[in-house]
Amino acid sequence: MRKFVSEHQSPYLDLTTEVSDILYRGHSQFQDIIVADSKEFGRMLVLDGVFQTSIKDEFMYHESIVHIPLFLHPNPKKVLIIGGGDGGAAREAVRHPEVESVTMVDIDGQVIELSKKYFPEISKAILEKDPKLTVKVGDGIAFMREAENYYDVIIVDCSDPVGPGEGLFSYDFYKDTFKALKEDGLFVQQTESPFMHRKLVKDIFDCVSDIFPITRLYTAFIPLYPSGMHCFTMGSKKYDPLAWEPNRKRTFPTKYYNEGIQKSAFVLPNFVKDLLYGEKER
Amino acid sequence: MRKFVSEHQSPYLDLTTEVSDILYRGHSQFQDIIVADSKEFGRMLVLDGVFQTSIKDEFMYHESIVHIPLFLHPNPKKVLIIGGGDGGAAREAVRHPEVESVTMVDIDGQVIELSKKYFPEISKAILEKDPKLTVKVGDGIAFMREAENYYDVIIVDCSDPVGPGEGLFSYDFYKDTFKALKEDGLFVQQTESPFMHRKLVKDIFDCVSDIFPITRLYTAFIPLYPSGMHCFTMGSKKYDPLAWEPNRKRTFPTKYYNEGIQKSAFVLPNFVKDLLYGEKER
Repeated sequence: MRKFVSEHQSPYLDLTTEVSDILYRGHSQFQDIIVADSKEFGRMLVLDGVFQTSIKDEFMYHESIVHIPLFLHPNPKKVLIIGGGDGGAAREAVRHPEVESVTMVDIDGQVIELSKKYFPEISKAILEKDPKLTVKVGDGIAFMREAENYYDVIIVDCSDPVGPGEGLFSYDFYKDTFKALKEDGLFVQQTESPFMHRKLVKDIFDCVSDIFPITRLYTAFIPLYPSGMHCFTMGSKKYDPLAWEPNRKRTFPTKYYNEGIQKSAFVLPNFVKDLLYGEKER
Repeated sequence: MRKFVSEHQSPYLDLTTEVSDILYRGHSQFQDIIVADSKEFGRMLVLDGVFQTSIKDEFMYHESIVHIPLFLHPNPKKVLIIGGGDGGAAREAVRHPEVESVTMVDIDGQVIELSKKYFPEISKAILEKDPKLTVKVGDGIAFMREAENYYDVIIVDCSDPVGPGEGLFSYDFYKDTFKALKEDGLFVQQTESPFMHRKLVKDIFDCVSDIFPITRLYTAFIPLYPSGMHCFTMGSKKYDPLAWEPNRKRTFPTKYYNEGIQKSAFVLPNFVKDLLYGEKER
C-alpha cells in the first residue's frame, strides 16, 4: 500500500509526498514528530504536521540562515543558535574559522536525539561533538533573557509561530536579542513566506525595526516550504547587508551560498518592498 | 462537498488546492483544460493537469519572462511570443514604449478564447485589441521556421515539454529561433525548475549554448510551479545580461520586476552553477 505524508500549507493548500517508509512517529513533550523517507525529498522531519527539513533541500535553508549573517559580520566569534535542533545550522556555523564558539539552545531534546539517529548528515556537528559547539536543551526565550552584550551573531532557527516556537516571534524576545548582542552584533530569524504569510512578515519587520537601527529582509528558494519563497528577517546594530563587500575569503565549499547570493538575496521583488515599506508606484 | 484540484508535480509529489468552483472543464484539440476558482491562488488555468497560471501569482511569471529580456535589449521593436495563450506575456510586452509590434502565436485557440472569458486581467491586451498586438492561432514551430532576421526579442512562453509544447524544446527549434532573430536579437524560454527538472534544464542549456554565443539562466519565485524555484533560459547574439547596465527608464509600474531583479535573477546558487557548468569546489 502506498504511503504519503502531507502538510497543510494553508487551510486551502496541501503538499503531499509519497514515502517509502515512516521511520518514526511519536510525541515529545512539545510536539508531534514524524521521520519519513520520502520519494521526492529524501528523508524528512515533520513537526506538528509541518515539513521542517529534508535531505534533498536542507542545504538551501541552512546555508541561507547561517552564511549570510556570518559573512556579513567581519569577525563573528561567538554565535548563538536558538532552535535548530536538527543540527544543520550548527554544522554550517562551525565551518567558519573565525567562529570560536557556537551555543545551540533547543527546547526539544527529543528532536536533537532523533536527528542524531536519523539525520547524521545534518546533525554532524552534534554527533561528532565539534569542540566549538555547546548544545543545551532548554527554553531559548529564558536563555536569551539572561544573556547580555555577549554574542556577535544570533540565529533564530525556529519552527512556525504556533506551538513551541510562538514566543520567538515577540517584541520582548527581540528586545532580549538586542541586549544579548555585542554593540556590533546582528541576528537573523526565519520568518516564513512573504508570498503566503504577509501579515506575519510585515509585523515582524516592523517589530524588529522598532528595536534595531538596521532591519533587512532577504529571501531564498526553499522547495519544501510553502510557496518555495522563504524569507529571513535580519536586525543589525552596525553592519548593513546592502553595503556588504567581501571582507574575507570563504574557506569551505557550499552548495547554495556564494558571494553573489550574499548580495542578491537582499534584492526584493516590488510586491515584497511594497509590503515592508508601503506601496508606491514602481 | 469540498472540491479540489491537484497537480502531480512529480510521480511522488502533489500540490492540491481547494476550489470554490470549477468554471470550465473540457478538451480542446490539443489538451484538457480546467478553469477553477481556487481558494489559495484565485482563478487558475490548468492544462493537461498542470497548473499554468493563477490570478495571485501570474505577475511573478509574466513580468519575469517579459521584462528581463526586453530591458536587456536596448531597443526592442519587434517582439514574437510563442505560446502565451493566456495573454499575460503580451500584456507585459506592449507596455514597453520601444516595442512597435508584438506577434503572438499559440497553437490552441481555445486557450485564448477561455482566457478572454475567464481571465480578463491576464488577457487584457488581447481583449482590448491593443494596436501593437497581432494574435495568430497556429503552430509556433512552423511559424518560426519561416521567419528570418526579423525579431529583436522572442519569448517562448510554452507549457511543459510533453503534449503540444514538446517540439519547442528541440535543437531544430532553437536553430530556427536563432535565424528568426536580428543580428543583435535574443530569446528566452521558460525551462521549468532547476531543483526538480535537472536533466531538462541542463540539456536545454547545452543545446542553446551550441547555437547562441551567449547563453544564460535566470530564476524567479513562482509559487504555483513545482518547487517554487523556476528558471528561464536565454540565448543572446550580442547583449549579455551579466554586463547589463540600465539603458533606459522604466515608464510603468511593476509588481515583481525592478532594476535590482534584472541583475539578481542571474545570480545562481552553486548547485545550479554546478549543474550548468560542471562541479567545482565552491
